[in-house]
Amino acid sequence: MAIIEGVRIVDATIRDGGLVNDFYFKDEFVRAVYETNLDAGVDYMEFGYRADKKQFDPEKFGKWKFASDEDIRSIVGENRTKMKISVMCDVGRCDYRKDIHKKAESPVDLVRVATYIDTIPQAIEMIEYADAMGYETTCNIMAMSTCTDDQLTKALELLCKSPVMGVYIVDSYGAMYPKQIRHLTRLFRDKLSPAGKLVGVHTHNNQQCAFANTLEAKDMGARLLDATAYGMGRGAGNCHLEALLGYYNGKKYHVEPVLDLVQKYMLDLKEQGKRDGLEWGYNTSYLLTGLTNQHPRDAIGATKVKNYNFREQYRYHAYE
Amino acid sequence: MAIIEGVRIVDATIRDGGLVNDFYFKDEFVRAVYETNLDAGVDYMEFGYRADKKQFDPEKFGKWKFASDEDIRSIVGENRTKMKISVMCDVGRCDYRKDIHKKAESPVDLVRVATYIDTIPQAIEMIEYADAMGYETTCNIMAMSTCTDDQLTKALELLCKSPVMGVYIVDSYGAMYPKQIRHLTRLFRDKLSPAGKLVGVHTHNNQQCAFANTLEAKDMGARLLDATAYGMGRGAGNCHLEALLGYYNGKKYHVEPVLDLVQKYMLDLKEQGKRDGLEWGYNTSYLLTGLTNQHPRDAIGATKVKNYNFREQYRYHAYE
Repeated sequence: MAIIEGVRIVDATIRDGGLVNDFYFKDEFVRAVYETNLDAGVDYMEFGYRADKKQFDPEKFGKWKFASDEDIRSIVGENRTKMKISVMCDVGRCDYRKDIHKKAESPVDLVRVATYIDTIPQAIEMIEYADAMGYETTCNIMAMSTCTDDQLTKALELLCKSPVMGVYIVDSYGAMYPKQIRHLTRLFRDKLSPAGKLVGVHTHNNQQCAFANTLEAKDMGARLLDATAYGMGRGAGNCHLEALLGYYNGKKYHVEPVLDLVQKYMLDLKEQGKRDGLEWGYNTSYLLTGLTNQHPRDAIGATKVKNYNFREQYRYHAYE
Repeated sequence: MAIIEGVRIVDATIRDGGLVNDFYFKDEFVRAVYETNLDAGVDYMEFGYRADKKQFDPEKFGKWKFASDEDIRSIVGENRTKMKISVMCDVGRCDYRKDIHKKAESPVDLVRVATYIDTIPQAIEMIEYADAMGYETTCNIMAMSTCTDDQLTKALELLCKSPVMGVYIVDSYGAMYPKQIRHLTRLFRDKLSPAGKLVGVHTHNNQQCAFANTLEAKDMGARLLDATAYGMGRGAGNCHLEALLGYYNGKKYHVEPVLDLVQKYMLDLKEQGKRDGLEWGYNTSYLLTGLTNQHPRDAIGATKVKNYNFREQYRYHAYE
């Protein structure tokens, strides 16, 4: 079965990383990530969520929670580069009819619609709207380790009839193993490829399987591969961009710019995060929510207050 | 093809972890690891190397570099438990005719012979000797990411004729991906199973693939699975024992004792190691030696002196 051309690497540092620090990034850093991604040959850079300001107080979040066209433009100008730009919109948390403007008036290329399995129809409405406004679109189905194959098959059948460019496997809980990722990618590929649509993969590192799972999905046909610099992202974080680019290093992709970014910014950001209780990256609490297929929120809480009673955390997730 | 029964989990914390701190573990800690492994249902615990004291100065290493029967007995007594005990012997670094005594006089059950691909005949001599003395034996072929399939096939043919119980895939450089591990495990399984011998797997975490690779090898037929508490081991460390036991948690294996060990000992050991320049665990320098299939020694050096010039490290490994 034909899989549509080569991979596209999607950097989600500002978007998933923003979940660590409530999107309070300095412009200097966002600009550095943008320049790094350009030099590295990254295909898409995600600038944040486009959240509804009526639902989320702009006083309580950095601007990349809302990732307006104006704020993106202040970093990228008209972005006359080969790299495309994305924002993420959550079903039910984005006033898309108001906040998604015509593509011709926006630096954004791709609108990624994040949804749980039970709101696929609403996601498709948003996808149709964004498509009509001129954007590429993806549907990112979150918490997929809690979905059945039947649920996913039905969702994919609906999405195949939509204008969506690609559908993402999102392992929000970092609960999946390579074998499961291969199974799901095969399921997605077999449904999506005949409709000319791409499979995407977005992993979390709770069990330190994020990079391995991304490679496995790629081998099985995934073509949109998410990663973040130094793995920055909610909880245990994501597939490390420098690992993925190191794997692909060559003519198209270059790891060295991201190594510079890690040296110059990410090490400090991580240390500062530890001091401020805004930590990300693998630890035993995240392992336990991954192993038990749970949302990472309790592990985030335990990490913040330095609760190392892992036995109790495990028992809570495994038996209660 | 029949694969011989269920998995055996082998804890190598003291042995591979000893490479981090030159085997200077307190007896209290070694005893805690032993008790933990017993409670957790671990099948084998490795107590160290049995290195030749003529080659290695006992003043410069902790006693688990030499893991004598007496020192092991001081922890385990006669070890009248279900758990077996192993030591590792490196080809060329063990005076085995002198230091390996009759099984009837030793608390050790399993002698693991570590070798590079070019000293298989010497390894087999040691295996035959240890077998004749009454021990179970394995052959652990190190740095396997630098071996060709032809080399390995020839080695396996020789080993099939030996009394060895199992042969290990050892990813010393942490250079392998799940796909490669599956390929090698299949190769090993197809050669070894008809001879009634087991496949083993020992991974390193340079690319954060240690746990994923261990599971992949298991699914393809590996039956001796190495891991260490909190991943303690040379460089980027190993597959985390608490991850593997969490995966298997149930009737036979129990993760909770290892979670207690992590809380009580491993967190401090790791923090103290960082202060003393005796660090282990994933970092960007280890990623780079893994990506380029190199021995971790340069990354260990860079980590020790806090050299964060990752671009230079990468260029050195990739291009020089």
